[in-house]
Amino acid sequence: MAEFYVQILGCGSALPTTRHLSSSQVVGLREKLYMIDCGEGAQVQLRRMHLRFTRLNHVFISHLHGDHCFGLPGLISTLGMLGRKGDLHLYGPPGLDEYLRPILERFAKGLGFQVVFHIFDPGRSELILEDASVSVRTIPLTHRVPAAGFLFSEKPKAPHLLREMIDFYQIPIRCLADIKKGMDYCTPEGEIVPNRRLTRPAEPPKRYAYCSDTAFRPDNAALIQGVDLLYHEATFLEADEERANETRHSTAAQAGEMARIAGVKQLLIGHFSARYEDEEALRTEAAAHFPNVLLAKEGLLVPL
Amino acid sequence: MAEFYVQILGCGSALPTTRHLSSSQVVGLREKLYMIDCGEGAQVQLRRMHLRFTRLNHVFISHLHGDHCFGLPGLISTLGMLGRKGDLHLYGPPGLDEYLRPILERFAKGLGFQVVFHIFDPGRSELILEDASVSVRTIPLTHRVPAAGFLFSEKPKAPHLLREMIDFYQIPIRCLADIKKGMDYCTPEGEIVPNRRLTRPAEPPKRYAYCSDTAFRPDNAALIQGVDLLYHEATFLEADEERANETRHSTAAQAGEMARIAGVKQLLIGHFSARYEDEEALRTEAAAHFPNVLLAKEGLLVPL
Repeated sequence: MAEFYVQILGCGSALPTTRHLSSSQVVGLREKLYMIDCGEGAQVQLRRMHLRFTRLNHVFISHLHGDHCFGLPGLISTLGMLGRKGDLHLYGPPGLDEYLRPILERFAKGLGFQVVFHIFDPGRSELILEDASVSVRTIPLTHRVPAAGFLFSEKPKAPHLLREMIDFYQIPIRCLADIKKGMDYCTPEGEIVPNRRLTRPAEPPKRYAYCSDTAFRPDNAALIQGVDLLYHEATFLEADEERANETRHSTAAQAGEMARIAGVKQLLIGHFSARYEDEEALRTEAAAHFPNVLLAKEGLLVPL
Repeated sequence: MAEFYVQILGCGSALPTTRHLSSSQVVGLREKLYMIDCGEGAQVQLRRMHLRFTRLNHVFISHLHGDHCFGLPGLISTLGMLGRKGDLHLYGPPGLDEYLRPILERFAKGLGFQVVFHIFDPGRSELILEDASVSVRTIPLTHRVPAAGFLFSEKPKAPHLLREMIDFYQIPIRCLADIKKGMDYCTPEGEIVPNRRLTRPAEPPKRYAYCSDTAFRPDNAALIQGVDLLYHEATFLEADEERANETRHSTAAQAGEMARIAGVKQLLIGHFSARYEDEEALRTEAAAHFPNVLLAKEGLLVPL
């Protein structure tokens, strides 16, 4: 399993079909799971994909449309029945707590854990989570209701120690943590061994951006510049651009254009309208702007 | 397709598994669909089973546990997006409206149809719906929260006209409706032809009873006496009877015993605990009390 990956639980738009469930996905990073959006059925998808519920501590909701959050009451009830003790952190726009609290009070009294709400202002980019592995910022989006995407930035990893050099200088174990932090080593004879002779730099940290649901927002290009993977909604084909504008969604062409101007490494499109039987047309349209395009699909796992 | 049938959308208990979804089923009767319970994912199951949303006008909720009603917000939102105009009638215990109204106000503003709540007292058997095809009564149940089952009684059907006798007496079309209603026919010559010579009685009306979630309630036997089909929860095996008592659920043995004392024609058991991999053990246990037992399964359609 990759150290950092995205797995799709659902990638349909508002009307569920037999092909796609409502929006939900997980970001896997160093043994933790971060869920983005939680449409109806997300908890069953977690089961189907054998993702352990105990790894999940953070859920990010992009906006308050039912197809992005109607799976929360069931997921939280299930976590309660499974005997969860640790806090569950929910991040979302204003109203998430007013929506969810009365439901939890009615249906999930006596939960063995706290649901901690982190309400953000979707109008600007905010740092909403920072832990040892990752920082998460919001990405302001334009939709019919306040909405934000999420930028996951992996924390820099410690450099690798060069085993043969550690052995050569017979460096005691107690000094290794400092060397990992970048310090030089001073031998008992007083010789200074520079850090760069003892370590190899870690892989550069990776970044993932989630932009759904949203109209075309080229002004976000700077914020997500060069990310390793961009999930961008592509609800419509360009032929239905008028409908996209009315409903504040993007076309596949706009998703491709966004990937191009942001110079991302790979584009993953989803949130497909139920009207398209042949999603290959959406891929082709996006690929005319940006060649490296993947179509989202339930179960798809993309390593970063 | 049978005129009167039950189809299972979900028959698991509270914890969803890869084998079973949460509780939901539809009763099909003379082109109409009546939904009983609406766990998460019910709307996707309707799609999978190619059941037309427009046939659905009545939803019955047995009790306010999430695995029996968390599918309602998504189902109602979807009906709105599909352009529904006709009223949707929801039947449930007190609290159903307080749960649902705020969610609909937040997520489904501008629905093109009315959601009409019919709140019943789960403590006694009430007639809650009567239309041209069916009457529906509640069945008082015993669970951790107020709960009721539902007894569907088909309305008697008009007798069949005997085509050859109608032709023999050259009865005008305008007289046929009266004959269907039971009237005799008077020929132009003044001869009285008794109704029983012109018609054949319709099939006797059928009845379906849904009892879930509930502890063993033998006092309900009179109410559901002789029904054509009884759906009864069988959450646990007898070996786990203590757990069944604690949680106010039934064992498979109790479901079988209920079918026996109520003299039903067929028993369908469901609401299986996630702990049992082998549900055949549940069937065997129920069958020791009542031989004609079916195991519920997503997609199963049982004609009455």
